Amino acid sequence: MDGPGMALPAGAGPLPHHDGSGLHAPVRAERGAEVRLRLRVPAVWGRAARVWLRSLHDGEPRYDPAASLGEADGWVWWEAATVPTNPVTRYRFLLEVPEESAGAKNRGGAGRLQYWSLNAQGLFSRDVSDYADFRLTTFRPAPEWLRRGTMYQVFPDRFARSAASDDLASARPTPDWAVPCSWDGTPVEGAGPHTPYQYYGGDLRGVTERLDHIQQLGADVIYLTPFFPARSNHRYDAATFRRVDLLLGGDEALIELVEAAHARGLRVMGDLTANHSGDAHEWFRRALADPASEEAGYYYFNADHTAYESWYGVPSLPKLNWASPGLRQKFVLDDDSPVARWLRPPFNLDGWRIDVGNMTGRLGATDLNQDVARLIADRVRAINPDAALLAEATNDAAPDFTGEHWHGAMTYSNFTRPLWSWLAGDAGHVNFFGTPLPGSNRTAAEDFLATHLDLSAAFSWDVRQQNMNALNSHDTARAATVMIDGGQRLGAVLMFTLPGVPVMFAGDEFGLEGDNGEYSRTPMPWNDPGRIRTDLRADYAALTALRREQPALTGGGVRWLHARGDVLAFVRETAHNAVLVVAARAGAGVELAPGSLSPAQLAALAGPPAYATAAVEVALSPADAAAVLIRTSGPAAAAWVLPGTRVPVPQP
Amino acid sequence: MDGPGMALPAGAGPLPHHDGSGLHAPVRAERGAEVRLRLRVPAVWGRAARVWLRSLHDGEPRYDPAASLGEADGWVWWEAATVPTNPVTRYRFLLEVPEESAGAKNRGGAGRLQYWSLNAQGLFSRDVSDYADFRLTTFRPAPEWLRRGTMYQVFPDRFARSAASDDLASARPTPDWAVPCSWDGTPVEGAGPHTPYQYYGGDLRGVTERLDHIQQLGADVIYLTPFFPARSNHRYDAATFRRVDLLLGGDEALIELVEAAHARGLRVMGDLTANHSGDAHEWFRRALADPASEEAGYYYFNADHTAYESWYGVPSLPKLNWASPGLRQKFVLDDDSPVARWLRPPFNLDGWRIDVGNMTGRLGATDLNQDVARLIADRVRAINPDAALLAEATNDAAPDFTGEHWHGAMTYSNFTRPLWSWLAGDAGHVNFFGTPLPGSNRTAAEDFLATHLDLSAAFSWDVRQQNMNALNSHDTARAATVMIDGGQRLGAVLMFTLPGVPVMFAGDEFGLEGDNGEYSRTPMPWNDPGRIRTDLRADYAALTALRREQPALTGGGVRWLHARGDVLAFVRETAHNAVLVVAARAGAGVELAPGSLSPAQLAALAGPPAYATAAVEVALSPADAAAVLIRTSGPAAAAWVLPGTRVPVPQP
Repeated sequence: MDGPGMALPAGAGPLPHHDGSGLHAPVRAERGAEVRLRLRVPAVWGRAARVWLRSLHDGEPRYDPAASLGEADGWVWWEAATVPTNPVTRYRFLLEVPEESAGAKNRGGAGRLQYWSLNAQGLFSRDVSDYADFRLTTFRPAPEWLRRGTMYQVFPDRFARSAASDDLASARPTPDWAVPCSWDGTPVEGAGPHTPYQYYGGDLRGVTERLDHIQQLGADVIYLTPFFPARSNHRYDAATFRRVDLLLGGDEALIELVEAAHARGLRVMGDLTANHSGDAHEWFRRALADPASEEAGYYYFNADHTAYESWYGVPSLPKLNWASPGLRQKFVLDDDSPVARWLRPPFNLDGWRIDVGNMTGRLGATDLNQDVARLIADRVRAINPDAALLAEATNDAAPDFTGEHWHGAMTYSNFTRPLWSWLAGDAGHVNFFGTPLPGSNRTAAEDFLATHLDLSAAFSWDVRQQNMNALNSHDTARAATVMIDGGQRLGAVLMFTLPGVPVMFAGDEFGLEGDNGEYSRTPMPWNDPGRIRTDLRADYAALTALRREQPALTGGGVRWLHARGDVLAFVRETAHNAVLVVAARAGAGVELAPGSLSPAQLAALAGPPAYATAAVEVALSPADAAAVLIRTSGPAAAAWVLPGTRVPVPQP
Repeated sequence: MDGPGMALPAGAGPLPHHDGSGLHAPVRAERGAEVRLRLRVPAVWGRAARVWLRSLHDGEPRYDPAASLGEADGWVWWEAATVPTNPVTRYRFLLEVPEESAGAKNRGGAGRLQYWSLNAQGLFSRDVSDYADFRLTTFRPAPEWLRRGTMYQVFPDRFARSAASDDLASARPTPDWAVPCSWDGTPVEGAGPHTPYQYYGGDLRGVTERLDHIQQLGADVIYLTPFFPARSNHRYDAATFRRVDLLLGGDEALIELVEAAHARGLRVMGDLTANHSGDAHEWFRRALADPASEEAGYYYFNADHTAYESWYGVPSLPKLNWASPGLRQKFVLDDDSPVARWLRPPFNLDGWRIDVGNMTGRLGATDLNQDVARLIADRVRAINPDAALLAEATNDAAPDFTGEHWHGAMTYSNFTRPLWSWLAGDAGHVNFFGTPLPGSNRTAAEDFLATHLDLSAAFSWDVRQQNMNALNSHDTARAATVMIDGGQRLGAVLMFTLPGVPVMFAGDEFGLEGDNGEYSRTPMPWNDPGRIRTDLRADYAALTALRREQPALTGGGVRWLHARGDVLAFVRETAHNAVLVVAARAGAGVELAPGSLSPAQLAALAGPPAYATAAVEVALSPADAAAVLIRTSGPAAAAWVLPGTRVPVPQP
């Protein structure tokens, strides 16, 4: 049987297309104000008999007929209007096309019409659930700098010891929980009793001193994992939210870092645990000592106060109870709440990444998740409308990320994980958030695309722009360990060219390895170049530059052209700019079907790629001037820029 | 490329299987109590290397390894345990199978493992979103009678005039809104100024007098569309909820009907509009007259009280405002509230169907839908734990129907609509809830299955049992109009054999026709046999009997065996009973792959079908004793019962 989806049928040629980008839709809408949405149908499909916009209003679908705007450069454009009723409007397009036309199956007699549904997962020759409908939202826009930014993740204990840190050593003795380690001499323990306690002594002034390095990579948003005092090297077990850990240099070091970063036009984001505190936290200490204390209500104790809920049953991470008005006040609403104080002078953080966003506010029969997200988001935006608010949701994140609260998700399900599967080497079993999947599970490009679409479709187009696209993080193995030779470079191209915010985890630029999240927290090889595995600094710098220079990469639509076996190809498009990306994991050729690119786009392809990592050959097919033949050899990654390309925007 | 789903790959043979039926799962669970879930893998797939249960807890996935229970009758059974944390637990199975094995693709080198995800939409060779995960729920069970029942829908004005109705005519003069019509003489106007006002004068005593007819069809639940006084023949514009329309015989007639039905073991359900009242309603009259009245808060008036919200902008249907505590009290909580009073003596209705359930409580930025559902459900169950509560949601209903409140949905998206598409004749354009799709949109069996799975997957197994499966209703065209010759019969087989409650709309048994919901409300042809188009009474009676006699049809799992072009085949299974259903819309043969049925099931197939509508030939394939060859000729529908078949349940 056919699969339920037909996002990109083999050999189908260009398909009817819509995405939330400016060519097709406004970025956001207002309730009660008319919105125009556009669909384009390949001219080779023949003239669609009818096209409708189907949109939901108060839970009920409406059908608005679309009008044809005429043909331009191989596409027939259609437009329909609707007036959003709700904060989020789900919509899809319905088409009836003569069965004789290019894309249709031939099932009935002559003159029959073939019916198609187009949603964010692709094109279906049948009805579909509302799940993957496109989503038009009415929420406040995310900060422009976040959407256009490139993120650099720093795990403070492992990034850099400041020049002064030896002097300071006497002033900050190794704490009782720590196992002191030598920066270049002690191997990181990936799984052992010392794992959370290995202490390498990186500090925030170490970050400040390395801003040149970060900036040379082209990153412009520094994301710091937690800097609060704790009883572990990862500091997700905060002992207080009221100061920066003295081991990291204290409040002054953070102020200096943010000031220095801002002076360079860089942003700095922090990391806050809203799901739990540490068991050494002042709130929890009082709660534990006194069942009658206000703080006892911040947590979930049992009736006789002998046990409490904690993250995954780990006693050092007691879970916060968001039903407590006191907690809401203390954590969010108070002037000096953790949510508020670090976003204001003198600290001036540019935003938060909220840890374990998916579990926050959820316990058993209680689900306050979206309520807590709203509470935090309202507070953050009241302090600084230009602050960023991201949240972690390692798995399927879309249902919690409507765009109302969190700007985007630190998630792995729609990009990182399918990319790992497509580029999997032979690293054997690699841990991925407890998932039992083997690293050897190599899938084909069509699986990457199907997974990517399945797990991206339920985000609004807007939220997709702010989702964090990472090859790896402090919580995962390193891409260099998991992927085939050259795979990290190839993955990086996709990370910088697909919708979302690219995220480098410090060490990626040196090709560092690691079998799991703990192993990945390797101290940076500043002093021992022998620990550099692959120097990818130039590659990352080239990709950040490409992304900054090409509007299509941060504001353009995404139209998939090919996904089969070893090769993925898509084009990002605005009205005046386009970037063609062909990524091949092995020597392979791909012939894009006639009509895949506009004549102007094709003409621009004659030039060399703007970025390439292996031998690449591009040629207009002699047999068909509308087809473009691309050959790559060896593990390769390539992105072509089509400068000055004008994607036709028809005038009604 | 592959489609994202592989529910039933062509020629694949048997596939790993799980559904929520007793062979694989408990019907429901309790939070905190261990649950065992079973998966079966065809033995021909070779031994799975690893199998896990992936389940979500407080928004985070956990992976529990499954243990093999051993092989039985061609299946290797696996079992995993989990402890539900939340009211609904989403889960799926993950499998690693050697690539050499039957079902796997061959992509990598020898010894590689192929990874599969199995969710309620089928089998995927990749990660999938949480959307179509199986759902294990902890809610109170639906009434047994509802799950096992067969429903008969009555539109009172058109079902039957009681023998006494002429005598009563003087006592109940034609109301001012009505256009009197002759039962057998005046054609129903499908779309015209008179449509809602044509008055044929059917009444509740007319229903009571026809209980023999209903019972002979085997139906045991009568669903009455509204019986409250109104200013239309459909009565969805209630003028009060406090009494039965005198035109229908008043309160006494309802009491008599329910008593007579109960005496025969039949149930009676009513129809309540929670989204709106009529503009003649006493509440709305007061609200309109007095902006300061309590009732003004029951509706959505603008600031100067000159306009109000209504269903789809129809002024006669003012929308109820569920933010009003007064409305909640009056509509639900009061002793004599409409929700409460009709479920209690002397009326004793057996449950409600809630009209426009999908829009109820939703308006613009406000979404109280689930809150209202909870309010109504709590009240209904407090009055009668054995009362049924269904709600209308014509389109994708699953997200609103978790099983916590409504027992099931009156929906059309997962059964009626894909069935219409598969069995579409050449009726041209047929209206379907405003959808612009043509009646001529005939699709293949694989599209039926893909749509059915896509729009069923997000229901819990439990809710699926109570969803209303209808070929048509008072809101749609008639199946006989839409479908190919014999299509209604074929559709009826699927309606009676797929999970869900079969619903006959009065007149189906006579093959009545109608181009839309209004046309379909034809007065019953009691007096004029010439208006009977096709007498299907014996067919419906046979199918209700089949469903009553075969436990697999109301409690068994569903395993799809074939879906291609003209033929659908599946088996319903319990541990001791199975029903094989083969439905062919045209002359066609199907060869089920070896291993599709167990040896015991195969042996039982030698007998004749329990129900068949056309020539059918069944034979064990001589070439392969494990394959079964089925031929049907002409538009056909067939269901085989495999009496005494034991589906093997392995012992751990």
